[in-house]
Amino acid sequence: MKQVVECIPNFSEGRDPSFLDEIVKVIKDAGCKVLDASMDASHNRSVVTFVGTPADVEQAAFSAAKRASELIDMEKHQGEHPRIGATDVIPFVPIHGVTMDDCVEMANRVGKRIGEELGIPVYLYAKAATRPDRVRLPDVRRGEYEGLKEAIKTDPDKKPDFGPSQLHPRAGATAVGARPPLIAFNVNLNTGDVKIARAIARKIRESSGGLPHVQAMGIRIEETGLAQVTMNLLDYRSTSMEVVFSKIEEEVASRGVEIVNSELIGLVPLDALLDVAFARLKLEGFSKERILDLMV
Amino acid sequence: MKQVVECIPNFSEGRDPSFLDEIVKVIKDAGCKVLDASMDASHNRSVVTFVGTPADVEQAAFSAAKRASELIDMEKHQGEHPRIGATDVIPFVPIHGVTMDDCVEMANRVGKRIGEELGIPVYLYAKAATRPDRVRLPDVRRGEYEGLKEAIKTDPDKKPDFGPSQLHPRAGATAVGARPPLIAFNVNLNTGDVKIARAIARKIRESSGGLPHVQAMGIRIEETGLAQVTMNLLDYRSTSMEVVFSKIEEEVASRGVEIVNSELIGLVPLDALLDVAFARLKLEGFSKERILDLMV
Repeated sequence: MKQVVECIPNFSEGRDPSFLDEIVKVIKDAGCKVLDASMDASHNRSVVTFVGTPADVEQAAFSAAKRASELIDMEKHQGEHPRIGATDVIPFVPIHGVTMDDCVEMANRVGKRIGEELGIPVYLYAKAATRPDRVRLPDVRRGEYEGLKEAIKTDPDKKPDFGPSQLHPRAGATAVGARPPLIAFNVNLNTGDVKIARAIARKIRESSGGLPHVQAMGIRIEETGLAQVTMNLLDYRSTSMEVVFSKIEEEVASRGVEIVNSELIGLVPLDALLDVAFARLKLEGFSKERILDLMV
Repeated sequence: MKQVVECIPNFSEGRDPSFLDEIVKVIKDAGCKVLDASMDASHNRSVVTFVGTPADVEQAAFSAAKRASELIDMEKHQGEHPRIGATDVIPFVPIHGVTMDDCVEMANRVGKRIGEELGIPVYLYAKAATRPDRVRLPDVRRGEYEGLKEAIKTDPDKKPDFGPSQLHPRAGATAVGARPPLIAFNVNLNTGDVKIARAIARKIRESSGGLPHVQAMGIRIEETGLAQVTMNLLDYRSTSMEVVFSKIEEEVASRGVEIVNSELIGLVPLDALLDVAFARLKLEGFSKERILDLMV
């Protein structure tokens, strides 16, 4: 089976559909498969999700950044979402037959090309970050396009990893990085009491001392009237769906309610599901190489 | 992702390695991937496991049967395993993006070609069978090559589905069919008492009134000293690994022992593992189309 990398670039244009059409075309022309493309007018921002082989994804990401630098003028951009450039952020995500290190290398190569060939300063972030204060995107975006104009010239902490120490006159700067896939995972409870879901969410999420790399909230779903623990798993290799689900099972039992079912929103990496099966069966000595479907 | 079919033809030659080399070459030349090829001298029989797209697998199966009919003379064949021809049996197994009906159609097309182009009588079996007394291979093989010589000419029940009503002078006859993938699944117990594994096997297996499409035995593994329930799941869509494992969990608990771990032998279809994950998470509304790895 082919190697697969996912890429989810964000662009600072969310009102002109012809812009998104152009970007999607550039990505498809590079041989990648576009899984989703959406615009948000109030954020004035587009997000494209695509997959392909590492070489194709690299080319598509660079070509899309180039096209966006021709189409967007950051001097005129306004929107609610923080941003530093026309192509605001490019994350590479290892999916199949590719390691995180491979994606860090992709971020470096694409970042270098964007810096040198397009003259756009690039900050490496997340797993590709070269400094601790560039791991988190909000830190990289601090001051945004407007604030970065001066700071990039004067503040040594704002010196980019690639490209010139001044913003591109129209395209600003770009954050390029590598990160694990995000899994949007919801668990529905057989109660309408949102307080129970909130209490469980507090036990689960990292920010209140729960499981690493887990974001969680308790909400109530109007359609069903049921309480739900809604989660983002930011690194399923550190905290698996099995670990999260087991923890919720415990919390649910101690509160006298039950899990009705669970849902996955959007796209999911295969390993995240296989890990659940392997744990359930206490399976040992098995590897993905023995799955028939993946052999052709 | 590509469509994938598995094929596991059995040939009546298990002593001459050059025969197997020839057959493997023919299959690879047709664009398929050979996963395993083995000979058994006392059975005087070879088994090749290969995968590929439906069109490639069809061509490979026909070409292999043709080559075997040139290389093997059934008049001289002796071996312990029952058989009716040079290419004794050809099963097609749906793996990815292919239905059982698709594989039944493949069996019909390949059977027709073997019958008409090679002059070898073909019996359709398993899911491709045209009569109830041809579903099981032992029924199709009754009398074997030697007995079939006369019976095929005189017994209306032995009239083949394709090809002439007389055996090919060297290659005999061939059974061609479609069946689900077989899963070899073992569960190890934290006891050396083989009687417990045997008792659980009796509860599990179809032949003693247990779960449909499950074969099971209780054995003791020399290396570990542990008792094991060793199983073949003949149709995981009817009786899933989750159902089998849950049943063993119940049986184990009522006998005061525990499951140590489990193992899968050989190759496994992806769906069989995904079913386990979906059941474990009580996952609803999800489909394989949302697995990132499978999108390229």
